[in-house]
Amino acid sequence: MKLRARYIDVDTGEMTALLLDDDCANLGIREKDRVKITHEGSTVVAIVSTTDSYVKKGEIGLMGSAFKTIGPEDGEEIEVIPAPKPESVEYIKKKMDGNELTKEEINVLINDIASRNLSAIELAAYVTSMQINGMNIRETVDLTMAMVNTGETIQFDRSPVLDFHSVGGCPGNKVTLLIVPIIAATGHMIPKTSSRAISSAAGTSDIVEVFANVDLDGKTLKMIAEKTGGVMAWGGSLNLAPADDVIIKAEYPLGIDPHAQLLASVMSKKKAVNADYLLIDIPMGDGTKVPTMESARQFAHDFIDLGDKLGIRVECAITYGGQPVGRAIGPALEAKEAISILEGAKNPNSVIEKTIVLSGMLLDMVNGRGGEERAREMLENGRALAKFREIVAAQGGNPDIRSDDIEVGGYAVDVLAIKSGYTNRIKNKDLVKIARAAGSPHDKGAGLLINKKVGMKVDDGEKLFTIYAENEVKLQNALTLAQKLEPMTIEGMVLAKMPSYSKMKF
Amino acid sequence: MKLRARYIDVDTGEMTALLLDDDCANLGIREKDRVKITHEGSTVVAIVSTTDSYVKKGEIGLMGSAFKTIGPEDGEEIEVIPAPKPESVEYIKKKMDGNELTKEEINVLINDIASRNLSAIELAAYVTSMQINGMNIRETVDLTMAMVNTGETIQFDRSPVLDFHSVGGCPGNKVTLLIVPIIAATGHMIPKTSSRAISSAAGTSDIVEVFANVDLDGKTLKMIAEKTGGVMAWGGSLNLAPADDVIIKAEYPLGIDPHAQLLASVMSKKKAVNADYLLIDIPMGDGTKVPTMESARQFAHDFIDLGDKLGIRVECAITYGGQPVGRAIGPALEAKEAISILEGAKNPNSVIEKTIVLSGMLLDMVNGRGGEERAREMLENGRALAKFREIVAAQGGNPDIRSDDIEVGGYAVDVLAIKSGYTNRIKNKDLVKIARAAGSPHDKGAGLLINKKVGMKVDDGEKLFTIYAENEVKLQNALTLAQKLEPMTIEGMVLAKMPSYSKMKF
Repeated sequence: MKLRARYIDVDTGEMTALLLDDDCANLGIREKDRVKITHEGSTVVAIVSTTDSYVKKGEIGLMGSAFKTIGPEDGEEIEVIPAPKPESVEYIKKKMDGNELTKEEINVLINDIASRNLSAIELAAYVTSMQINGMNIRETVDLTMAMVNTGETIQFDRSPVLDFHSVGGCPGNKVTLLIVPIIAATGHMIPKTSSRAISSAAGTSDIVEVFANVDLDGKTLKMIAEKTGGVMAWGGSLNLAPADDVIIKAEYPLGIDPHAQLLASVMSKKKAVNADYLLIDIPMGDGTKVPTMESARQFAHDFIDLGDKLGIRVECAITYGGQPVGRAIGPALEAKEAISILEGAKNPNSVIEKTIVLSGMLLDMVNGRGGEERAREMLENGRALAKFREIVAAQGGNPDIRSDDIEVGGYAVDVLAIKSGYTNRIKNKDLVKIARAAGSPHDKGAGLLINKKVGMKVDDGEKLFTIYAENEVKLQNALTLAQKLEPMTIEGMVLAKMPSYSKMKF
Repeated sequence: MKLRARYIDVDTGEMTALLLDDDCANLGIREKDRVKITHEGSTVVAIVSTTDSYVKKGEIGLMGSAFKTIGPEDGEEIEVIPAPKPESVEYIKKKMDGNELTKEEINVLINDIASRNLSAIELAAYVTSMQINGMNIRETVDLTMAMVNTGETIQFDRSPVLDFHSVGGCPGNKVTLLIVPIIAATGHMIPKTSSRAISSAAGTSDIVEVFANVDLDGKTLKMIAEKTGGVMAWGGSLNLAPADDVIIKAEYPLGIDPHAQLLASVMSKKKAVNADYLLIDIPMGDGTKVPTMESARQFAHDFIDLGDKLGIRVECAITYGGQPVGRAIGPALEAKEAISILEGAKNPNSVIEKTIVLSGMLLDMVNGRGGEERAREMLENGRALAKFREIVAAQGGNPDIRSDDIEVGGYAVDVLAIKSGYTNRIKNKDLVKIARAAGSPHDKGAGLLINKKVGMKVDDGEKLFTIYAENEVKLQNALTLAQKLEPMTIEGMVLAKMPSYSKMKF
């Protein structure tokens, strides 16, 4: 059918064509069906939205990218015919029905996702089916490789490639800023890519961005890593396993993170940089992504198994994530805390010990033994600090960076205890909400500095934490939220103590 | 935060606000989060799409209905703050996790759906979770009543209210056009609402629209039903259980029809008209919605059980739906066939016998016995035809309507057998595709007339079916598709015969 093209200057992410109900009926299609649009040899498939205005009879409205792709003049006639759903929709239904998908089906599905051929509804059905029915290990391997193959990969000229990942969910977890320079200082290469915050107060990239450029292309990342041994880049600019970014757009609004999808998401990014040795930090506890030891062990088992099948040697550390790591939450505050440790500060102990243990585990994977001692040595003899400054300089930051130079928000307020006792619970998710209300991670200087961690004695009127913000309105919003949420509870006695981490090897 | 409102003249169905990434980050939100927008005391909650064009820093683009609801001047400052997800999203996740929902949770969920507060992603997660995890009978009763309560209801001054529904999936099923006047001719009232085709070649409303107005408001429907005893209206204009229309928008693109949702969809529309006696036709067989006798019995059992709890007496007829009912497929062709039977035609037998048996069952529900005989009498003595004409006249059609007056498409082509034997299989779904390619249901005159049904002897070169269309292009498209799909198979012998229906009473 010939219709006149009308340009509609909005892009909602999907390839969208607007048609009158009557023209839809005449084409034999309905809302959310697809049409194939042809103009001078170029073709685009768009998803139909029906309308009773915006276009007239005999017209088709093309939104942003759909119009640009085929490029007719406004008002020019183009050929429009019904197009079938992508095969992928059948595979999503197969997963919905609880069936195993073949490698080929997974390839087609991930390719359609990465090419943005699926609608929001189809993507949501995929992630919901994954959340409920999941995937077995064979499918997860194929899913991981399909995700690797739809993006860029980086092949380093140095080997081995060491890597680190934290499953996240625990605020204040700035250990990447310490592990990367420690490992690089020992002479190994660790080309670390990280994400920005999705729902947390600060992703590693948000923190690194306080003092260096994280938006590197693959070539620059490779050069810096091979030269200095370390790099701390934002994964988003590298086009590694890009299907993941599309999938997150459907997971995030639902607040879900399907197990097999999480496994594939992490491992595809590691496989894309051809990691040889990978240490995974699994923060476990109330308010993290992994609330119980049982689920933590399941994750560890599945990461190690998946790594085995992908040719990556994986070890996992199940760490205590039931309260923040260290005291600082928020980009600048976390940067300041991490750099002060590189400079020789002896606290917070939770950050230093977690860093040493994890760095040691990763070094032991390569060298067999002595990892923790070597990591501690790098921290204490200043070589980790020197390496950190070398990496920062390579990423366009100040080579003489000092923790005192990092500016935090100019507006601050202390939150005080209203009774005496012991801090017996800190609610991670509430602290994150307060830090975000204060402006974190967008406002780099916004965040929290915790004064009382779990198990510490508190006197009535003593400071529990300080909120930092870059303006007074957000500071007030954060304080109001803090008063409402009561993110820390104080009781008369400590009930139990948990070790701050435990090593897991299979 | 204060932002300047920009009007964007597109309406994609969701309340959408367009923001720059940076303004989103500053608000602490991401794509698909919600914002609450306030202007001069009126408030709207919109779902955020991020953009890097269309709006400038400090601006918020409001699409169609979102802008109109709060009505600022273009460029005027409005207050924008982050808004939480509706509680319903938690209930969708609860269903995703396989848990039972409370009555109150279902009410909140259906209310949010009917009020269009949920995004396409959230709706898709809901229908996918329903498809996989389903609902028990208690939840289904609450779902049905929640759907009733979000729409209009009709209370008739006559009683009892008889009603009929076909689950659908079998082409050519025009029995509603016969059952309604037969029941009304016996002195009972049957206020029948029907749907238009979604993926079929013709819904009952598409057929009735060939000779009468189906777009009635509740008051007119009530008046016609109470006066004539029968009415054949389109449900879409009556606002009965409107949540259903929103839910279908997510089910249709996925090609799913979750069991509990289907039950609630049917029964909510019957409860909304306060039906007392309801007969449900469940066409069973290859290419229908109910492929096996086991699934048909399950549907029958669940409809009857649900009816019991809703105060509706329900009986179900499991009918043979493995091939079309009668010969005609498509609005005008089906209208013609149905009216010719009212005029006294003795074929197609499958339509006449199905009509008599179903009408008889419905009459027996009220009167206890003698229903079939009474139904046959109404058909044979012309009182069903007279009643039909009375109803047609009341719905604004020609009171002297005759089957010969119904015009079918002016372009036709015969599809011939290329070998001799017996028709042993007719593929419903392929016939529907061909009828739709010919223009059905939009082009009222388009469709198919089947010459050979299952089990009939066919000679090489004999006519299998005729395709009708309203223009040559669509006729050619349909013929090409027919040649590709081969919707009928011919073998040397008949393997088995199935009864054309069986009564089910529990």
